[in-house]
Amino acid sequence: MSKLLVVGTLALDEIETPFGKTGRILGGSATFVSLAASQFGINIGVVSIVGGDFPKRYFDILNNKDIDTSGVEIVEGGKNFYWKGRYHNDMNSRDTLITELNTLADFNPIIPQEFKDASVVMLGNLHPLTQSSVLDQMSEKPKLVVLDTMNFWMDSALEDLKNVIKRVDVITINDEEARQLSGEYSLVNAAKKIHEMGPQYVVIKKGEHGALLVNGDKMFYAPALPLAEVFDPTGAGDTFAGGFTGYIAKTEDKSFENMKNAVIYGSNLASFCVEKFGTDRMVNLTKDEVMQRLHQFKQLTQFEIKLT
Amino acid sequence: MSKLLVVGTLALDEIETPFGKTGRILGGSATFVSLAASQFGINIGVVSIVGGDFPKRYFDILNNKDIDTSGVEIVEGGKNFYWKGRYHNDMNSRDTLITELNTLADFNPIIPQEFKDASVVMLGNLHPLTQSSVLDQMSEKPKLVVLDTMNFWMDSALEDLKNVIKRVDVITINDEEARQLSGEYSLVNAAKKIHEMGPQYVVIKKGEHGALLVNGDKMFYAPALPLAEVFDPTGAGDTFAGGFTGYIAKTEDKSFENMKNAVIYGSNLASFCVEKFGTDRMVNLTKDEVMQRLHQFKQLTQFEIKLT
Repeated sequence: MSKLLVVGTLALDEIETPFGKTGRILGGSATFVSLAASQFGINIGVVSIVGGDFPKRYFDILNNKDIDTSGVEIVEGGKNFYWKGRYHNDMNSRDTLITELNTLADFNPIIPQEFKDASVVMLGNLHPLTQSSVLDQMSEKPKLVVLDTMNFWMDSALEDLKNVIKRVDVITINDEEARQLSGEYSLVNAAKKIHEMGPQYVVIKKGEHGALLVNGDKMFYAPALPLAEVFDPTGAGDTFAGGFTGYIAKTEDKSFENMKNAVIYGSNLASFCVEKFGTDRMVNLTKDEVMQRLHQFKQLTQFEIKLT
Repeated sequence: MSKLLVVGTLALDEIETPFGKTGRILGGSATFVSLAASQFGINIGVVSIVGGDFPKRYFDILNNKDIDTSGVEIVEGGKNFYWKGRYHNDMNSRDTLITELNTLADFNPIIPQEFKDASVVMLGNLHPLTQSSVLDQMSEKPKLVVLDTMNFWMDSALEDLKNVIKRVDVITINDEEARQLSGEYSLVNAAKKIHEMGPQYVVIKKGEHGALLVNGDKMFYAPALPLAEVFDPTGAGDTFAGGFTGYIAKTEDKSFENMKNAVIYGSNLASFCVEKFGTDRMVNLTKDEVMQRLHQFKQLTQFEIKLT
C-alpha cells in the first residue's frame, strides 16, 4: 500500500464566521491534509507536535480514519498551537485575532522508521528549515514531494525557502504569494519563474476562483465548485492539498494528465470542507458523496465542441 | 443565413495602460460584439448612432467583415460618444477619466426592415427603455435575446431594467452587478434570483476569473485563458458577448450543452481581444487562430478521471 507522509500542524482553532462561533476545535494543516487523503485508502503517517492540552479524542478522529499518529510528539505540560480568526461577511478575507505558537515553536520533526520510505511527502506550511529536515531524514528519495508555504516565510526566511523549494516536485501557493515569490504580476509568468526555482509542477490556489496547475507551457485549470453557502473556509487549502497528494499517492503517476485528476480531487474535497465548521464535514464524508461531486465537477467543466 | 441584430454603441475610446496611450480609437459595445460575431459567417446588422466626427474608415473596418451598418444613424454636426479611461498596473481596475454621451444621449434605435426578423438579438449595455424599444420593433419573436447591462441602470432605472429583463432569454452581467441586482452575495444564489426575474440563462462574467453559465440547477464554468500579458482589457466583455451570441446564431440551438460551447467561444475570442489596443487584434484574427486557441481551452479544462 502506498505511503503518504504528512508533516504539518495539529492545531486548536477558534473560529468566528457570520454563521456562528466555535470553541476550541481541531484544526491544523496536518489534520486537514490527512483527513482528505484518507479518502484514498492509503497508508498515512502524520508527523507533528502537540501540547498536553490537545484532547485525546482528536487523535481518535484521525486514528479512526486509519491515520497513523505515532509520529506526533506530545509535550506533556506544554500548550498546543492555537489560532483564533474571524471571517468577514464575504468569507474571502479573515482577520487573525490570536496566534500562539506554544509547543510548535520547538517543532523538530522526527520521521518514524516506517515512513522514511514514503512514496509521497506532503510538507505543510512550516519553517523552510523544518521542511528541509524532513527530506534529509528520508531513507530513499520519495516519488513526489509537495510543499506548501506562505508569505510569512518569504518575508522572514527567503533563502531557506528557496533552498527547500529546489528539492520539491510540486509547490502549492496562493495567487498573492506566487506574485510575491516571483516578482511577477501575471500568474502565467509567476508560475514560470517558480518552475525555474525547482518544482516541476506549480499549483496556484485562487480560493473561490479555483486552482491553476502549471508545468512549463502546459496549464490546467480546476474551478472551485460554486456553492450557495460557504460556512467556514478554514482548512480548504490544506484539504485541497490532501486530496491532491492522496490521489497521487494512490495512483503513483506523475504525468501531467494524472496531475490534472489530482487537482480535480483536491477541488472536490475542498468543496466539502467549507460546508461545516472545522473538520465536521470531512470526518463524516463518504466515498459516494465524493463520487457524486465528481460528476458535478464534470458537468461544470466538460464540453463537446464539434470543430466547424 | 442566420441573422444577428446587434444594438449598442460605436464609441471613440481613448485608453491609457501601463503599456502606452492611444489617441481616439474605435470602440463601443456594438463594435466589439459584431467583430467577434463576424467569426461565424452569419448575417450581422448593427444599429447604433454616431456623430459627424466618427471616421468613415471605422465603418470600413466593420463593413470589411460583412457587418451591415445601414442601421447606424449618423448625426452630421453632432459629436460622437467618447470615453477615456486609464487602467491600473494590475489591469483589473480602471478609472473613467471622461465620458461624453454626446449624440448617444438621443439614441432612439430604428431597426431596419431586414433585421426585424433576426433570430438572435444582442442588446448591448444601454438604457433599459432603449433595449425594450428594440424588442417592440421585432416583426417576429427572436429565437434568442441576450441582454447586457450594468450597475448604472440598477441605480437609475431599476424598474425599467426589471421590465426588459423579463423579456430576454440570457442576461450577461458581471459578478458585482449580479450581487447588486439580486441582493445575494453567493453567485449561485444571485444567479437563481436573476433566473426568477425572467432569463432562462444567466451568464456571470468574472473577468480574469472566467464566466459562469447558470440555468436553474445546471452550472457551467469557463475559465479565462491565463495570459502572460494583458495589454488592454477594453472590450473583452463585449467580445465575450459577441462570441457567445455569434455561436448561438450560427447553430440556432438553445440547449444547455450548446450554451456551454457558446460560453467557451466567448472566452476564446475575449482572450484575443485583450492582446492589443482596442480592436487591433480582432480585426486581423483568423479562423485558424481561433481553432488553435480552442485546443488550448480543451487542454486547460478537460480531464479524464477513471472512477475508482
